[in-house]
Amino acid sequence: MFFASDNSGPVPPQVLTALAEANTGYAMGYGADAEMAEVTARIREIFEAPEAAVFLVATGTAANALALSTLCQPFETIFCTPTAHIHEDECNAPEFYSGGAKLTLVPGAPGFDDKMTPEALRATIAKEETRGVHGPQRGPVSLTQVSERGTIYSLTELQALAAVTKEFNLPLHMDGARFANAMVALDCTPADMTWKVGVDAVSFGGTKNGLLGVEAVIFFDPKHAWEFELRRKRGGHLFSKHRYLSAQMLAYLTDDLWRDNAVKANDNCAYLAQGLRHAKAPFLHEPQANMIFAALPRATHQRLFGAGAAYHLWDAPLDGDPQEQVAARFVCDWAIEKQQIDQFLALITQPE
Amino acid sequence: MFFASDNSGPVPPQVLTALAEANTGYAMGYGADAEMAEVTARIREIFEAPEAAVFLVATGTAANALALSTLCQPFETIFCTPTAHIHEDECNAPEFYSGGAKLTLVPGAPGFDDKMTPEALRATIAKEETRGVHGPQRGPVSLTQVSERGTIYSLTELQALAAVTKEFNLPLHMDGARFANAMVALDCTPADMTWKVGVDAVSFGGTKNGLLGVEAVIFFDPKHAWEFELRRKRGGHLFSKHRYLSAQMLAYLTDDLWRDNAVKANDNCAYLAQGLRHAKAPFLHEPQANMIFAALPRATHQRLFGAGAAYHLWDAPLDGDPQEQVAARFVCDWAIEKQQIDQFLALITQPE
Amino acid sequence: MFFASDNSGPVPPQVLTALAEANTGYAMGYGADAEMAEVTARIREIFEAPEAAVFLVATGTAANALALSTLCQPFETIFCTPTAHIHEDECNAPEFYSGGAKLTLVPGAPGFDDKMTPEALRATIAKEETRGVHGPQRGPVSLTQVSERGTIYSLTELQALAAVTKEFNLPLHMDGARFANAMVALDCTPADMTWKVGVDAVSFGGTKNGLLGVEAVIFFDPKHAWEFELRRKRGGHLFSKHRYLSAQMLAYLTDDLWRDNAVKANDNCAYLAQGLRHAKAPFLHEPQANMIFAALPRATHQRLFGAGAAYHLWDAPLDGDPQEQVAARFVCDWAIEKQQIDQFLALITQPE
Amino acid sequence: MFFASDNSGPVPPQVLTALAEANTGYAMGYGADAEMAEVTARIREIFEAPEAAVFLVATGTAANALALSTLCQPFETIFCTPTAHIHEDECNAPEFYSGGAKLTLVPGAPGFDDKMTPEALRATIAKEETRGVHGPQRGPVSLTQVSERGTIYSLTELQALAAVTKEFNLPLHMDGARFANAMVALDCTPADMTWKVGVDAVSFGGTKNGLLGVEAVIFFDPKHAWEFELRRKRGGHLFSKHRYLSAQMLAYLTDDLWRDNAVKANDNCAYLAQGLRHAKAPFLHEPQANMIFAALPRATHQRLFGAGAAYHLWDAPLDGDPQEQVAARFVCDWAIEKQQIDQFLALITQPE
Repeated sequence: MFFASDNSGPVPPQVLTALAEANTGYAMGYGADAEMAEVTARIREIFEAPEAAVFLVATGTAANALALSTLCQPFETIFCTPTAHIHEDECNAPEFYSGGAKLTLVPGAPGFDDKMTPEALRATIAKEETRGVHGPQRGPVSLTQVSERGTIYSLTELQALAAVTKEFNLPLHMDGARFANAMVALDCTPADMTWKVGVDAVSFGGTKNGLLGVEAVIFFDPKHAWEFELRRKRGGHLFSKHRYLSAQMLAYLTDDLWRDNAVKANDNCAYLAQGLRHAKAPFLHEPQANMIFAALPRATHQRLFGAGAAYHLWDAPLDGDPQEQVAARFVCDWAIEKQQIDQFLALITQPE
Repeated sequence: MFFASDNSGPVPPQVLTALAEANTGYAMGYGADAEMAEVTARIREIFEAPEAAVFLVATGTAANALALSTLCQPFETIFCTPTAHIHEDECNAPEFYSGGAKLTLVPGAPGFDDKMTPEALRATIAKEETRGVHGPQRGPVSLTQVSERGTIYSLTELQALAAVTKEFNLPLHMDGARFANAMVALDCTPADMTWKVGVDAVSFGGTKNGLLGVEAVIFFDPKHAWEFELRRKRGGHLFSKHRYLSAQMLAYLTDDLWRDNAVKANDNCAYLAQGLRHAKAPFLHEPQANMIFAALPRATHQRLFGAGAAYHLWDAPLDGDPQEQVAARFVCDWAIEKQQIDQFLALITQPE
Repeated sequence: MFFASDNSGPVPPQVLTALAEANTGYAMGYGADAEMAEVTARIREIFEAPEAAVFLVATGTAANALALSTLCQPFETIFCTPTAHIHEDECNAPEFYSGGAKLTLVPGAPGFDDKMTPEALRATIAKEETRGVHGPQRGPVSLTQVSERGTIYSLTELQALAAVTKEFNLPLHMDGARFANAMVALDCTPADMTWKVGVDAVSFGGTKNGLLGVEAVIFFDPKHAWEFELRRKRGGHLFSKHRYLSAQMLAYLTDDLWRDNAVKANDNCAYLAQGLRHAKAPFLHEPQANMIFAALPRATHQRLFGAGAAYHLWDAPLDGDPQEQVAARFVCDWAIEKQQIDQFLALITQPE
Repeated sequence: MFFASDNSGPVPPQVLTALAEANTGYAMGYGADAEMAEVTARIREIFEAPEAAVFLVATGTAANALALSTLCQPFETIFCTPTAHIHEDECNAPEFYSGGAKLTLVPGAPGFDDKMTPEALRATIAKEETRGVHGPQRGPVSLTQVSERGTIYSLTELQALAAVTKEFNLPLHMDGARFANAMVALDCTPADMTWKVGVDAVSFGGTKNGLLGVEAVIFFDPKHAWEFELRRKRGGHLFSKHRYLSAQMLAYLTDDLWRDNAVKANDNCAYLAQGLRHAKAPFLHEPQANMIFAALPRATHQRLFGAGAAYHLWDAPLDGDPQEQVAARFVCDWAIEKQQIDQFLALITQPE
């Protein structure tokens, strides 16, 4: 009953098999391995982007901070939501990698701060850089798909946001730590969700969807390639035994493993959501991918934790009125077994 | 009729005389001049702080960014209001000098965002650093006295804010670009407004109150001295011919020039405010020091600008309905002549 | 016949087995995994350092730059040799992570620049910081064991160097990318080579000696722990699925795998060196661990490369007088087969 | 008898007069003052560079670090001599402002390290960036004219060095803290010594030649202008009351004050050199501008210091064999009176 995060479960056997297969003989290091050539070709094919520059790193924070620092000057500001991972959960990595750029917060959807609206983005961008040399200059816009609150930007919403960034001639970055979960939920292609709507660079996540630790950074304009390579090396994120990153990513992109895992995770989530709905748990929003924000009585939380369930309470302590509803975040990955979900739901609906 | 800023007027003759007097013979450079020893002694005396470390730089941005970087680690966040000069008007200098620290915005007084409340500060600090290693750590609190909106923290308010910083064991920095204006308005001593209420470091402004370009940075705990000196040099802010900074600051602190200038500026502002009030101009707040935020009909603004008046409109364009009230900022310095204010007020009350 | 680097070969099966064993169920992320607790315990035991703080990262550049930035202020300088990896091969990572510290080069052994001497270190340190606030301040000393030229500091040499750092009260960092190779060559304990001689922090390499990509950073004084954790996260080097780093390191430290691999690599190197010596190849120095710098006629290099051998020429092109001796670097890892070395040597001694 | 530095003497009366004249009424701040427009026009005229971008800052360290950071990426290295001010005397300011770039030292003239040779520059540049992504990339070349050892690059030497930078397509920066002293010594025009030989940016010094504290940064290609402005503001080096910088620079460039001061300083130096030569003092090199490096017996130094003379001993203590020759640096500025030099020389030649 582990719903704490989608980065805590096991990896599928294909990934370990791929590591074993890559583990033969000697290979050129630092990204010059044969597997990486295949990864690049495969990603270009999947994204329908034959010129794209593709790089692998091992963490999402590295992917985001390196991508943004390549798109941003230190005297600029990056636009993101108040709940953005780059703002809340990277311990100032974007500020560090960019050499001291600022993050300007674009208010998200009312009450939830999860998704930018074009209006809020335009207003926030317009307000910045009205002070000439005194304020920071406008820099890249970064949005997270799936958002940190489990919601998804529709293709229409992405287009509208990208249109705003183009009005101001700003680059658009997508933090796609849960890229595959969004894509299968929208039933669209990778290209649909990125360059076709105007995304310039994407952190294409693998870790939360079944890899040991690999994320791809993709620039649709290859002019950024060399600078990114230098920044990656300077950040200590260039692997000498790079083939083991490549092998993971290749396994991920083979036989639709990445899509299948995302479908499984989203299905698990939908199944859990259905159960919670049946149990009359109030939802903070309608779940769209593999994360649920819903409330349960404190007594129920206590029973669940007591039985070994793992998940995060949301902005409220466990101590207090046992009948009071307290929100929580439930995250599903591909590996959760239905039986675990059933057991969990049984605990919820069990009479006190 | 120049109300655009208090950094645009002339300096009093005493300051130029002091430069001329300092301009004799050879002197040790880089802060080892005899005048600097006097400056330090005088500031320690005025602030009743015999151990204080005192340094001079030439700009307010340097003073703030260097002071904060001495109090802050790059993985921390600095707490300030959304309208703070360090956030809006220093082109990411605090982020740069701190090596990439974040600025976390504490909502200010409702509708005006000018002054922190202890409640908002406590809530904002409490919320940060609840994410362990993932979010930035809590760093210094910086407040601006006089605030960027022309309001003043009372000693009681300062005490309450300092009490919150002490709860969390965080250093408290005061951006005192208009320190003297606040002090004379509060009719208190420098010590009252700083270390006695719990301020750890202050940017003690001279430039907006009559100097060519000198600000003192004062640390009440001298343990910060050597690090500050190195950061100042590294930032290119250590003057070789330092005596010309010292001489200005010494003139400023001699015969109460600094207080007198501040009294004049505040009096000019009060006189202008009285006229605006008489003309029924709505105020965004009650002016407390040398800045007024008030509205006038667009037609009146046009008449004033046409007659050569200089000041900044606030968040609205000059084009539009001539009768609509549009807010503006009016800043007074020590040198403005009553006659100029009278001429300005006459233009306002002149029938269309 | 791959002698290009010790980061290009395969990993031993135990490491993949360990990954597979770790790949069960859900685990806390970000270093809170059970395996990491074991790693810490094991390293403390092996290093006889019960208080040591232990962290894992995935690359040597990350280990070095993060360790040094924790020991160094941005206005200081780091002392290292001109051939140090941190100077030549990390694309300014130490400068980046430290926020702009300098690297001051201590001349190494005459003609080879590979190892600091205490005299050169003392003279270089003494010369820095004679300029007060104008020059950088003295910061940590970093030395590489095995050196970048394949030589080894004896325990006596380490003691003498550490004594110099202590004279000036400076921290001592060891870049131990080939820690195990040095240790088995010196036939000493981990403690002998580190804290017992005065090393404060060590980058304890695993990647060049059989892991996919794991290095430990060890601080013998745990006061550095929390700052390091924040810097690691800020640098994007904290793995969410950390257990897969832990599992590798645990396998490395189990059943003496780390020592055995190092013994194999050094033995392979000694065997190759013997062959080269027999072939009358001039050595740039006496090999001590798993790297050889020796010269061969250009014609021989061409024959070797033609037959598929891989290694790096040293400061000279392949084109030119076929009889001229051209230096090259030959690196051995644990996995090289004797037969490959024999084949290589046969090619060398083959008559033209 | 003050020969310690050319930044310790008084400023000429014209400079103070200019400040007084500028001190009337209200002026736009932050470089929008009328005097700055004149400064720009005057510098463009003097340098025969009608497109040049011109900026003022208050210190030489700011001028150098800001100019270099505009020309340099953080993953590059700056080429300079081991005695360069940017390397030895700016407490890591170039590293700081560039976001962590490296400084690569080009050996200077044998034994003195004062001036780059084209051969050494080419060899050093050629060696860097042979390591692909692993080492820093080649960045700007910075040379100091007058050098830190008081020597001057001839126009031919400058041309040869610039030719090397162009071979590698690198920008060339000149630290001209003593620009005027070099120019009058070479009897050339500002254009001759800069863009005509291939200099891209120059720190044009005023402080060491008679100003309170003003340096101009000049880019001959104006494309760098906006980035420089933002970096200047971000560094806290944009003056609100900018007119007082402009006024100084304008006075400097009026009626040949800058040339006259430099002629005076160089003449004073030549006069002192003649006396030292007459006294048989050995010279470390032939003085060319306003600095002398020469040796005197320790007993003579003691007599001079005892009589109140001020200058710096060079790499040797005052204690020791009284007859031993100990080198010293003697710097002359425009204001030194012949009588002081005569008094100084009399003390030297005085029988023991």
